Amino acid sequence: MNPSKSRHALQLGVCYYPEQWPRERWPADAKAMRALGLSTVRIAEFAWSRMETAPGHFDWSWLDEAIDVLAAEGLQVVLGTPTAAPPQWLIEAHPDILPMDAQGRVKPFGARRHYCFSSPAMHEASRRIVTAMVQRYGRHPAVIAWQTDNEYGCHDTTLSYSPAALSSFRKWLTARYQGDINTLNEAWGTAFWGLQYSGFEQIGFPVGQPTSPLPNHALDFRRFASDEVRRFNRLQVEILREHAPGRPVLHNFMGLFGDFDHHAMAQDLSIAAWDNYPLGFLDTAARFLPESARLQWARSGHPDISAFQHDLYRGVGHGRLWVMEQQAGPVNWADWNALPLPGMVRAWTWEAFAHGAELVSYFRWRQLPFGQEQMHSGLNRPDGMPDVGAEEAAQVKSEIDLLLSEEGEEAMHTQAARVALVLDYPSLWMAQIQPQGADMAGFGVLLRYYSAARRLGLDVDIVGPQQDLSDYALVLLPSLLHVPEALQQQLASLTAVVVAGPRCGGKTAELSITQPLPPGPLRPWLPMQVRAVESMRPGRHYAVDGGQGEQWRDLVEPQAGVAVHARYEDGWPAWLSHGRWHSHAGLVNEALLIDWLAESARQAGLTVAPQALPEGLRLRRRGRWQFAINHGPAPAAVPVPEGHKLLLGERLLPAGGVAAWLLNPKD
Amino acid sequence: MNPSKSRHALQLGVCYYPEQWPRERWPADAKAMRALGLSTVRIAEFAWSRMETAPGHFDWSWLDEAIDVLAAEGLQVVLGTPTAAPPQWLIEAHPDILPMDAQGRVKPFGARRHYCFSSPAMHEASRRIVTAMVQRYGRHPAVIAWQTDNEYGCHDTTLSYSPAALSSFRKWLTARYQGDINTLNEAWGTAFWGLQYSGFEQIGFPVGQPTSPLPNHALDFRRFASDEVRRFNRLQVEILREHAPGRPVLHNFMGLFGDFDHHAMAQDLSIAAWDNYPLGFLDTAARFLPESARLQWARSGHPDISAFQHDLYRGVGHGRLWVMEQQAGPVNWADWNALPLPGMVRAWTWEAFAHGAELVSYFRWRQLPFGQEQMHSGLNRPDGMPDVGAEEAAQVKSEIDLLLSEEGEEAMHTQAARVALVLDYPSLWMAQIQPQGADMAGFGVLLRYYSAARRLGLDVDIVGPQQDLSDYALVLLPSLLHVPEALQQQLASLTAVVVAGPRCGGKTAELSITQPLPPGPLRPWLPMQVRAVESMRPGRHYAVDGGQGEQWRDLVEPQAGVAVHARYEDGWPAWLSHGRWHSHAGLVNEALLIDWLAESARQAGLTVAPQALPEGLRLRRRGRWQFAINHGPAPAAVPVPEGHKLLLGERLLPAGGVAAWLLNPKD
Amino acid sequence: MNPSKSRHALQLGVCYYPEQWPRERWPADAKAMRALGLSTVRIAEFAWSRMETAPGHFDWSWLDEAIDVLAAEGLQVVLGTPTAAPPQWLIEAHPDILPMDAQGRVKPFGARRHYCFSSPAMHEASRRIVTAMVQRYGRHPAVIAWQTDNEYGCHDTTLSYSPAALSSFRKWLTARYQGDINTLNEAWGTAFWGLQYSGFEQIGFPVGQPTSPLPNHALDFRRFASDEVRRFNRLQVEILREHAPGRPVLHNFMGLFGDFDHHAMAQDLSIAAWDNYPLGFLDTAARFLPESARLQWARSGHPDISAFQHDLYRGVGHGRLWVMEQQAGPVNWADWNALPLPGMVRAWTWEAFAHGAELVSYFRWRQLPFGQEQMHSGLNRPDGMPDVGAEEAAQVKSEIDLLLSEEGEEAMHTQAARVALVLDYPSLWMAQIQPQGADMAGFGVLLRYYSAARRLGLDVDIVGPQQDLSDYALVLLPSLLHVPEALQQQLASLTAVVVAGPRCGGKTAELSITQPLPPGPLRPWLPMQVRAVESMRPGRHYAVDGGQGEQWRDLVEPQAGVAVHARYEDGWPAWLSHGRWHSHAGLVNEALLIDWLAESARQAGLTVAPQALPEGLRLRRRGRWQFAINHGPAPAAVPVPEGHKLLLGERLLPAGGVAAWLLNPKD
Repeated sequence: MNPSKSRHALQLGVCYYPEQWPRERWPADAKAMRALGLSTVRIAEFAWSRMETAPGHFDWSWLDEAIDVLAAEGLQVVLGTPTAAPPQWLIEAHPDILPMDAQGRVKPFGARRHYCFSSPAMHEASRRIVTAMVQRYGRHPAVIAWQTDNEYGCHDTTLSYSPAALSSFRKWLTARYQGDINTLNEAWGTAFWGLQYSGFEQIGFPVGQPTSPLPNHALDFRRFASDEVRRFNRLQVEILREHAPGRPVLHNFMGLFGDFDHHAMAQDLSIAAWDNYPLGFLDTAARFLPESARLQWARSGHPDISAFQHDLYRGVGHGRLWVMEQQAGPVNWADWNALPLPGMVRAWTWEAFAHGAELVSYFRWRQLPFGQEQMHSGLNRPDGMPDVGAEEAAQVKSEIDLLLSEEGEEAMHTQAARVALVLDYPSLWMAQIQPQGADMAGFGVLLRYYSAARRLGLDVDIVGPQQDLSDYALVLLPSLLHVPEALQQQLASLTAVVVAGPRCGGKTAELSITQPLPPGPLRPWLPMQVRAVESMRPGRHYAVDGGQGEQWRDLVEPQAGVAVHARYEDGWPAWLSHGRWHSHAGLVNEALLIDWLAESARQAGLTVAPQALPEGLRLRRRGRWQFAINHGPAPAAVPVPEGHKLLLGERLLPAGGVAAWLLNPKD
Repeated sequence: MNPSKSRHALQLGVCYYPEQWPRERWPADAKAMRALGLSTVRIAEFAWSRMETAPGHFDWSWLDEAIDVLAAEGLQVVLGTPTAAPPQWLIEAHPDILPMDAQGRVKPFGARRHYCFSSPAMHEASRRIVTAMVQRYGRHPAVIAWQTDNEYGCHDTTLSYSPAALSSFRKWLTARYQGDINTLNEAWGTAFWGLQYSGFEQIGFPVGQPTSPLPNHALDFRRFASDEVRRFNRLQVEILREHAPGRPVLHNFMGLFGDFDHHAMAQDLSIAAWDNYPLGFLDTAARFLPESARLQWARSGHPDISAFQHDLYRGVGHGRLWVMEQQAGPVNWADWNALPLPGMVRAWTWEAFAHGAELVSYFRWRQLPFGQEQMHSGLNRPDGMPDVGAEEAAQVKSEIDLLLSEEGEEAMHTQAARVALVLDYPSLWMAQIQPQGADMAGFGVLLRYYSAARRLGLDVDIVGPQQDLSDYALVLLPSLLHVPEALQQQLASLTAVVVAGPRCGGKTAELSITQPLPPGPLRPWLPMQVRAVESMRPGRHYAVDGGQGEQWRDLVEPQAGVAVHARYEDGWPAWLSHGRWHSHAGLVNEALLIDWLAESARQAGLTVAPQALPEGLRLRRRGRWQFAINHGPAPAAVPVPEGHKLLLGERLLPAGGVAAWLLNPKD
Repeated sequence: MNPSKSRHALQLGVCYYPEQWPRERWPADAKAMRALGLSTVRIAEFAWSRMETAPGHFDWSWLDEAIDVLAAEGLQVVLGTPTAAPPQWLIEAHPDILPMDAQGRVKPFGARRHYCFSSPAMHEASRRIVTAMVQRYGRHPAVIAWQTDNEYGCHDTTLSYSPAALSSFRKWLTARYQGDINTLNEAWGTAFWGLQYSGFEQIGFPVGQPTSPLPNHALDFRRFASDEVRRFNRLQVEILREHAPGRPVLHNFMGLFGDFDHHAMAQDLSIAAWDNYPLGFLDTAARFLPESARLQWARSGHPDISAFQHDLYRGVGHGRLWVMEQQAGPVNWADWNALPLPGMVRAWTWEAFAHGAELVSYFRWRQLPFGQEQMHSGLNRPDGMPDVGAEEAAQVKSEIDLLLSEEGEEAMHTQAARVALVLDYPSLWMAQIQPQGADMAGFGVLLRYYSAARRLGLDVDIVGPQQDLSDYALVLLPSLLHVPEALQQQLASLTAVVVAGPRCGGKTAELSITQPLPPGPLRPWLPMQVRAVESMRPGRHYAVDGGQGEQWRDLVEPQAGVAVHARYEDGWPAWLSHGRWHSHAGLVNEALLIDWLAESARQAGLTVAPQALPEGLRLRRRGRWQFAINHGPAPAAVPVPEGHKLLLGERLLPAGGVAAWLLNPKD
């Protein structure tokens, strides 16, 4: 039971809540998990009130037993620190732990995530419970990894407007501006509207003003809040690392969620895990999609959203990716909750593996008949009988065995992609603070580019702006409003073909317009300037050669030597290039973007699909294996080369189907 | 002037506010009321500040005179207790009377219903004014009935978040769980997210948490609030019964409103009255209707909504139904306020009588040129001239005389219907707390079934779950999430054909999933289990044999012996039956539902229309009379049997038309 | 540099913020302004914190220098008092200055307009800064005019719910009702719902009640708030007039904004200036437009909205009209921010001049790269290079010179129009308080009538109800809910043709229904009565002879002698007349309204276009010049009479084009 032993294997796991079930059921549950082929069980992440039943009074008996019961069946345990659910007695003793919303209202006890990241009392209590927990289980042989808290920021909790948060914010500002209020005045541009401050203690939250506050006031609050999440998490990580040597520490992130800087925070983690709910996302995080997409992908999930997240978190996790919670049936928390297509739980699992996941852990072992999530399905029904998810998980397990027996684990080693897409969290915040177009969603723009590349059959790494880009053939910068210093330096020596989307390089770190004018720091490679920008409401379009422009355009004046490949109907350039560098002046319809990217990819020496893949079909290579997933709605022909045997699936892949074949070693 | 004398007659009445008009007008008004054929006048329900002009200082002179003036014309008076409008001096002395909203903001004085049902000061003041009022008028020969307060719960006032409400809520919980917090922990399922409480004084409102609170926390708050309304009402009823012997006590309920349990509360009442605003409902309470329905029925009202309410409140009122306020022209309070079709006020009046109303009382005598409702029409215009409503009321009066002269009052005795539709208020709350599909409206589902039965020409009783069902031929359970114990027992001995809609039997009284799986307690009669549920966003449909499924489906696995009559395109059963019991696994389009119900009705031995009635035409029998109302938009042929004479209306009934004929005595 | 010298000239100006730029740039900026042909520069209106750097400590050095630098280039200065931006130190010392929203939340420092108009501390501080400022610059030869504050009411700040506002409101009510609470009770109609007050100190804000408060409670609060704006402004005006003799005092009003009574307030001003953002309005203030209009006019602005405002503010300003801020490129503050059509900045400038503007001052000199408005374009780009606006301004300047050289300034003297449209601010508030139809927007109704007249080629004066109407041929009263006393008296002696729209004369000054019934005081000229009203939701229509009725109709019973020219499908009159007086019983589609108005205009002896002008083309005469502006989208033939020379533009005018010709002196 060496934690690192199974590192590269394709592992299946499950989330389990022994505290919600009678102890008598535990052994049968553990046996059934093992029988299903699961190796890993995450437990305890909401059980604070069961571990510390009163201040400083701990009850470990049940958890000791639960771990032992699981271990007895050979199951590995991931222990979650329970800080997402501070107990009632803690809140009663320290009501200042509670977060406050932007209207200054306390969010009371009664659900979860009812704490402010800045609360000193919460830090103190967290230190106590995490220390006690890891002192007891840190070296337990069955406990192979630790998860901090649960879904930081979920339910809009990254930002808190409590007195504790205000006090921390002022300290953070004092530090950022070296205690000099005039440095802040300068950075924020308080000359505008006469907003000078004379002391840090005067600064409030950037909310509730008669109209929008200074952009940098808002941005610094976002940065502060992001740092507070990291500070809170690091507190736990340091304790865990001390007492659980050799065990990876991870956090389970969410999908399409950017309220804090995951790249920065994950510097303190060993693995990035995330929670994959393909159907739920459609209704919630992916609000930027048109309603037609919500209808089209209602039962399969969008063909690129989960994949996007896998590719993002693989980078966030320094190459190590887990799916900590995998949707295994209908969820309860979207506005409407569809039934996954038959086979879709299997397909999502293989999709995760194809994108490099080491572990896919289903949520949850058994549907709980009570509580907020009683309508959230699990692998098993509330009455204990297997649900569809369990059947499909079992199928996956046998398919894993088939593939690994065909070719060893080494063939599953994830390799880097040739295409990098840069995601910068502060750029997302800047776009939210100064959107200019009400439907300009940061993730929406990133997804447009990601989807187009994926329709071309390209594998993509989503990387942070600090990451080394030197080995990529094609680098996409879809919505990099601000180009951080370190990235600017990398770009100078880059040999890749680079595609910059609209708004790139438009903002300084202080959220001002770059000078020289945008693309600002990119002008050495993109010798052009943005004269003006225009956002277009839904229904407004410009014809562009071969398609149409929508949502946004930069009005770009190219300098000599810049080629213009496509123009707007009124003559403004839409797609320009200068050597290896391309600039898209605006957003365009999907088919046109695919065409444009295809040409850039070919320039980068990449092989792209001769024509875009069918709407629902996606390809992903892992090691020497090539996978294909069809999200539907129609059957799709899999582009498997002549003479290759399909280990999974058929050449005409039905909706919800998965195909896999071994790549030629020469490939 | 014996209050019970005219009990079964078809009476007309009006709402009148003498305090808003000069005394000199009263005699002329009374004379005109009598001339119009009205028998009954409701007064005083907002006149607290005129009766108790300062704390403990009463001025009865005007009310004495008003009652005498009305009585002098032979008019009967319904007196309303004025607690819906606590005076300013009372609020000033006891600001804790004011209710608070979910954000913790006080709702100030300045309109109406500005009190919290839990306020001890309000209870005390209500006791004082009601006692004083009934001591003075309880035995007055002209005062034939008492109305408590006015439209409990109107303007979202059932729930209050004041300190008084919190204190009452905790006491209520302590009583419900016998003072044992662990009983509460068990019932609420606080094992979920570690939400254990250690004392009742720790419990807050189920609102404002970062995400949804425990379902049972929410449900108990709804139950508590419902009980508080009943407690407040009972306080008044007890005083009224003591001092006004023999006079019925009633309350005027609202339409499509379920914020408290009307069946429970009305156990303390003699009559259920309600306020019927067919055009207003379209814009407000009936938000679940598609916009096309709002356009289609803008001037006639929906052909089933008022009827639904009549049939509901006849049951709530133990068979005694009054329409206390009847729309008599355009209202002012909807987003858009249409003009009723010519004849529609008459049609609504006859519709009420056809459904068993003893009294239809128009709102209001004369449009008031000032105040919030100045654009609310009355029987008379602000200048005192008769409005359309008065003309149509006069017509109704002469038609009543015609019918009663054709056949005596006995022929108008309302009989029970053969079809019962069960409405359970807690089931409505459960659906609101755990909707799963954002457009799943409790009343919307009930109305689908009611409409389908009505399109078949069936009369329907809407009954509570406690009601005796033994005489019905067909029982509909459209959305009975929870099947109360008493109803379960009844079902065992039932001989009716029963149709259970989706979600039936899905929840325990504690708002958990039933086990065995749904339909849980209905499985003795519906041997099947719901494996999963799926909600469909607008625009998502499944083909079903002969139609389409929408909004919701249960995935049902039938056991042996269950017949499947229709299936979804993917094979799941849509309509199943087992002997006399039918189960609809999901909601389907109207035409298909009509087909399904027709078959069940025929199985129950009922005669149904050979084809569905025209969209706007509805039939209703009262005693030996058969009525037909055409809501339009087109003229409709009335299915009057050969040789029967139409006393009202024509065989081709225009929009807004009413027809009536005597049924064959053998019928 | 005589301030009055250039009064009737066509002047160009700009808004400039020296405090936001290094002093070294000022001279070059001034020189460039002069080179561009600008004559006037507005400065200082947000610079309080730079003038009064600490309580009572003034720093004038920078402003002295800025004014001198501008004056040295012959530029005239408009000085703005800086009260829209109270400094942080002032708020810190007097937090009670901050306004509060309707939920009782303080709106904190951090943007602008963070003060309550009723705050005594704000009055005091304003008196100090304005006095100090005008004592220093009031007689400066380069300072030719003073602007008070900036855009009163912007960001929803007219109404404040602070304790200071409540105290002022009670004083205001005490004065209005002569200290007699029963007078208030009578006026407000507190007999409704028993809402009697016994003292002024009991009265709260008309907000937060369980349902809507008394209409007159709401109306008095609107009146009070309007008076408070005027009181605050007059405080400044009195100081300015004392110390800056001979200099006009103005305020820069906003577009489609009626939160306070501009006619009343402007009695204290010399000139009405306003801020013209044609593209921004589409998304914000003109929400009443259908989405199709927002798409159609996205790049040109609606062809009537700016013109409407010009015609309104010319009246508000007693004939003197300035455009203080003129959109010169994309703005940043709408939901979507379109690029003006090429030539559109020029067209808007000429449109303003055609409607009588003396000055058009662009906002702003140079786009600021930081702060909330960093994406708001100016005449120059953030890097200092000229933007499109500068190019078009230069073109306008040369065209001014051309026209003035063709014919002297006298030919540009604005004359009164023959058509008056009456706008009454309290009527707008009444419509908001008692809308009856959720989409009945006061400005929307006014604009319907204005547009129809303009499509007929008519010039229109928009006048207040106090204004002398005796010289007009045609008077339009589109939505005059309340007809003030003074106007009633004028109407008696009027010789014009009058067209009254729906709802006219429907309300008393106390917001009650008029008696005799509406049109109430207009019945001497419109002998008819409104029996009922009906509002129609979007999608509901009535056929009317030649078109369709929408949104609203009055059901009108005409008396003898009234002609009915058009009827609704159900027979109710739609268009009636009685001699010179016309009544429109409801709103109708644009083409039909144009037809109806054409007939009334001909009756008034006016020449109207034989057929309606193209959708985007508008004509406006100034003095002996006739202008034509084409807002597009298609080129349009300009109706220039035979033999007239076009000084600007062509006979087939492209979108964004401007044409001008001299009228025949006989014309």
